[in-house]
Amino acid sequence: MKLNIAVLAGDGIGPEVSDQAIKALNAIALEFDHKFSFNYAKVGGAAIDDCGDPFPQKTLELCKTSDAILFGAIGDPKYDNAEIRPEQGLLKMRKELGLFANIRPVKAFDSLLDKSPLKTHLIKDVDISIYRELTGGIYFGKKEVSQDGNYASDLCEYSKKEIERVAHLAFKAAKARRQKVTLIDKANVLETSRLWRRTVTELSKAYPEVKLEYLYVDNAAMQMILNPKQFDVILTENMFGDIISDEASVIGGSIGLIPSASIGDKYALFEPIHGSYPEANGKGIANPIAAILSAAMLLEHFGLFDEAEIINYAVEKSLKLGITTPDLGIKHEEISTSKVGDFIADFI
Amino acid sequence: MKLNIAVLAGDGIGPEVSDQAIKALNAIALEFDHKFSFNYAKVGGAAIDDCGDPFPQKTLELCKTSDAILFGAIGDPKYDNAEIRPEQGLLKMRKELGLFANIRPVKAFDSLLDKSPLKTHLIKDVDISIYRELTGGIYFGKKEVSQDGNYASDLCEYSKKEIERVAHLAFKAAKARRQKVTLIDKANVLETSRLWRRTVTELSKAYPEVKLEYLYVDNAAMQMILNPKQFDVILTENMFGDIISDEASVIGGSIGLIPSASIGDKYALFEPIHGSYPEANGKGIANPIAAILSAAMLLEHFGLFDEAEIINYAVEKSLKLGITTPDLGIKHEEISTSKVGDFIADFI
Ligand SMILES: CC(C)[C@H](C(=O)O)[C@@H](O)C(=O)O
Ligand SMILES: CC(C)[C@H](C(=O)O)[C@@H](O)C(=O)O
Repeated sequence: MKLNIAVLAGDGIGPEVSDQAIKALNAIALEFDHKFSFNYAKVGGAAIDDCGDPFPQKTLELCKTSDAILFGAIGDPKYDNAEIRPEQGLLKMRKELGLFANIRPVKAFDSLLDKSPLKTHLIKDVDISIYRELTGGIYFGKKEVSQDGNYASDLCEYSKKEIERVAHLAFKAAKARRQKVTLIDKANVLETSRLWRRTVTELSKAYPEVKLEYLYVDNAAMQMILNPKQFDVILTENMFGDIISDEASVIGGSIGLIPSASIGDKYALFEPIHGSYPEANGKGIANPIAAILSAAMLLEHFGLFDEAEIINYAVEKSLKLGITTPDLGIKHEEISTSKVGDFIADFI
Repeated sequence: MKLNIAVLAGDGIGPEVSDQAIKALNAIALEFDHKFSFNYAKVGGAAIDDCGDPFPQKTLELCKTSDAILFGAIGDPKYDNAEIRPEQGLLKMRKELGLFANIRPVKAFDSLLDKSPLKTHLIKDVDISIYRELTGGIYFGKKEVSQDGNYASDLCEYSKKEIERVAHLAFKAAKARRQKVTLIDKANVLETSRLWRRTVTELSKAYPEVKLEYLYVDNAAMQMILNPKQFDVILTENMFGDIISDEASVIGGSIGLIPSASIGDKYALFEPIHGSYPEANGKGIANPIAAILSAAMLLEHFGLFDEAEIINYAVEKSLKLGITTPDLGIKHEEISTSKVGDFIADFI
């Protein structure tokens, strides 16, 4: 298979970890005789420094003419009080590419069970897939500040269509998994949540084999820790998904392990969820596994399941052998971001 | 001291647990020669059944003419799809009584460390006080549904004044504690969060001894599990406070242990955070400790610190001796809600 992949490495540890994902993809290409070509463009703080725009037109063009996008991370404290911030580029990119579904798998790796803050019996065999709506809700509604700066507002809005398209993806995924969808909302308070409940309940009739459950977001924040094994597929709106998926990331013991896919009708982007982690920049301590597993999600997206499987297997091997960065606290010796990437690529 | 206390026991396990709080207060009154009188009014589902309004005028009147309010819980699945729901009464009550600050202490009791889903070394000595804004934000902004029902919106709004009054309470509390306030927001996305940051940063200058830290809500949801000991006082807006405080409740091993105070300029209400738990209704298995500790917060509110201390001590004793309801899983024998209440009252 031939794939043109846009690489938007971004800020902080983004470039370091993206490099390791590319190593893994190159190893797969060699092994399976695929042709993957990589084209680079700037995003986030790197793009602001370059041209004043965190998601410039030429980056958008490259994304639109590529088969898939490999994304690193964005954000840098130096823009904290700036008018133009890296995050604006991320949101603009999601919106302009129509990436309406963000998918985050949460698993507990057997070899890392003791790294989790949660007790082992609670997390062994956890396997959750979170479907977060990514281009609607309070992230994109109208924002206002009064002239005197003493009042501000953010509008949370949803349409039935926006809910349906991500819900279909979640139900299809559940069908192929353990046949359960948990809708997380705050339907006892929010009108938008009641729209989510009505819409998803109606749509669920088209998937009679899938069980639909409802959970208020406050209760969900507890259940995720008390009994994460109860979850199969989680479906939720943008802001609740942001919070609940980051919370869920603690299960595996490190946020440095969780990949994600952001999918739309036309484009697809793959990204570690960890962010730019500026404190680690250039130290070689960033965990590349989330980026490498994001590359595996990219392969799955194109039906290359065997290839993805091999990456997943190589990652498990590196964890088992303790070939890991310091965040996992398995220090036989000092193992750098790039050494972990080399091991995984060699293994492939 | 003479106190007129309004009892709004509400639905589900609300009445059962409120009764135990009253037992404890009566024991304190006897011991310290105070005069506490209790007057009852309906709220939530119980009030809807009675008169069609989840927060009727006569309940409001009683609250306004009382020194403090003891609240049980509201909610019942039978109203799930009803036009008038119990939760509306709760929100109306908070708004009409101006209860703008909700305070939830999160502690890990030494005798319960092994009941927590988190590993012991992470939670030992955790002592957090959460200040949640309770009468603003997306809970109370304008809600809309389109005529065809295919679009809905909720407006999140805040004014500087609303932020300042709860922030002052949080900073005063921090001054008397470990001198740290963590503001939880989503300032990289929301205009209201940026107003919170600006306002709180400015106000913090009046408390030079208190350290102010900022945390995005998604990161906070992780940090609460990875390292809860980093927190002293948490300050946050209504919806984030709902989620983060419920999440934090897992630290202690049972949501049945966490009391709360809802404070305004004129009125004060004390309430276990656990909700109506309809499945447990009438079974005598509801944990009364959150309600009893809420009574202790009531006493503290009126400066009765010795009295509150004795309740806290009695609760710790009951936990140490395993005189607890089944949620804590320390079953020497079957111990009911009312037996736990009796033990604590007798001990006092
Ligand atoms: C950086 C931030 C705007 C972003 C979000 O809130 O969506 C991030 O937290 C994420 O989850 O990808
Ligand atoms: C019942 C519900 C409306 C309420 C809230 O969200 O405030 C509850 O969860 C709480 O925290 O007191």
